[in-house]
Amino acid sequence: MKTSRDAYGQQLLAQYQSQQPTVEIIERDDNYIDTGSDPGLYFSEYRQWSLLEKRAVKLAKGKILDVGCGAGRHALYLQTKGYDVVGIDNSPGAIRVCKLRGLKRAIVRPINDVNKFKPASFDTIIMMGNNFGLFGSFENARAILKKFARITAPDARIIAVTFDPYKTDNPLHSSYLLLNRRRGRLGGQIRMRVRYGATVGEWFDYLFVSPDEMRDILSNTDWRIEKLLNAEEANYVSLIQKKSS
Amino acid sequence: MKTSRDAYGQQLLAQYQSQQPTVEIIERDDNYIDTGSDPGLYFSEYRQWSLLEKRAVKLAKGKILDVGCGAGRHALYLQTKGYDVVGIDNSPGAIRVCKLRGLKRAIVRPINDVNKFKPASFDTIIMMGNNFGLFGSFENARAILKKFARITAPDARIIAVTFDPYKTDNPLHSSYLLLNRRRGRLGGQIRMRVRYGATVGEWFDYLFVSPDEMRDILSNTDWRIEKLLNAEEANYVSLIQKKSS
Repeated sequence: MKTSRDAYGQQLLAQYQSQQPTVEIIERDDNYIDTGSDPGLYFSEYRQWSLLEKRAVKLAKGKILDVGCGAGRHALYLQTKGYDVVGIDNSPGAIRVCKLRGLKRAIVRPINDVNKFKPASFDTIIMMGNNFGLFGSFENARAILKKFARITAPDARIIAVTFDPYKTDNPLHSSYLLLNRRRGRLGGQIRMRVRYGATVGEWFDYLFVSPDEMRDILSNTDWRIEKLLNAEEANYVSLIQKKSS
Repeated sequence: MKTSRDAYGQQLLAQYQSQQPTVEIIERDDNYIDTGSDPGLYFSEYRQWSLLEKRAVKLAKGKILDVGCGAGRHALYLQTKGYDVVGIDNSPGAIRVCKLRGLKRAIVRPINDVNKFKPASFDTIIMMGNNFGLFGSFENARAILKKFARITAPDARIIAVTFDPYKTDNPLHSSYLLLNRRRGRLGGQIRMRVRYGATVGEWFDYLFVSPDEMRDILSNTDWRIEKLLNAEEANYVSLIQKKSS
């Protein structure tokens, strides 16, 4: 089996080179398989975004770090608007695509390595496209939130998009949530991998949380939920504010 | 792992029940994964078919056996046109869908069991939607062609759709064709399985052939190619005629 960390990046590169949307295929560790994001989403322009996504991006201010920037749709938009923005992604293919598309500051860096940035480098960290999920787990989220506190200025904010996994009527998802609880994980801690062509990505954890679970994760950290957008729906945005020290 | 023979049938049932096209996901034994038929294809109506498909179905006459009838789109069309048509499929889910959709004669039966039909039962056997592939291999094709000869009348015909696998510019497909040759298989003898939700179908062989390979398969059998439609393209139809005895 040809395993690669970067099935995701290969998919983005192929889309960029062919200018054709490709179908994303995601496999979960209970063998559930499905298509992921809508074809073309990663390359979508501002005018094609949902109202929620537009509202979320509007909350960014100052110097911005885009965590899990993918093909760079948000970072490129913010760069065009004159913001000082850095995109990081653990996918070399994704970062290559960002650079090809004109993003000035794009770095291959996993979220766990954000402490490589200097203290107080950013005013806003954006985690768009469900990228709150990149925290991966409860414990890892708390460890990274500490790093986020260090690399951000006072009064900084995190704009995080996620999906409440309990708002599902699909029995395959409900039983997976239960399986996760039984093995001591958060319900929405999805173990998944990307499949692209003959390339099988590595397994990784991607975390979906309810607003209550997000509150738990943030409790006794440097961060608190300031505002939720669209909280009554499955897909919602959290504006997370740094507490004044 | 929940393995089931009938990921394909589950997919058809879900589409039938929800009236929503679902995306088909096919995995090949080199880990290549891709979406299969276009969503909704299995339930498409005559007016939505390709010109080639319409021309192929028009070649049917007399009593018709639809091998691998799927959700029954061709059999139902022919039934509406007044033909005496029997659909067989090895997928219980597919046959259930055919019955729910009004196909009068639909039987769960793998292609290898066609000799359960009485001698001279049919004038036409249709293998639509690339179903020449159900022969699976060179040897199996020849064994089943003998059974086809027995269950059909003199002057019977097979209408077979396939896809010339060598007409590809995808390097992943080209290298798979080579892999197959090296392991003593026809290039287009695809070992694949259907994935649907958390259900993993069983591996099976599905055979794609060039016109020359089809001629080899038919040589010294009761059958010969009478006419090819669209042979200059990858997807083509073969009208296969029973030799006069």
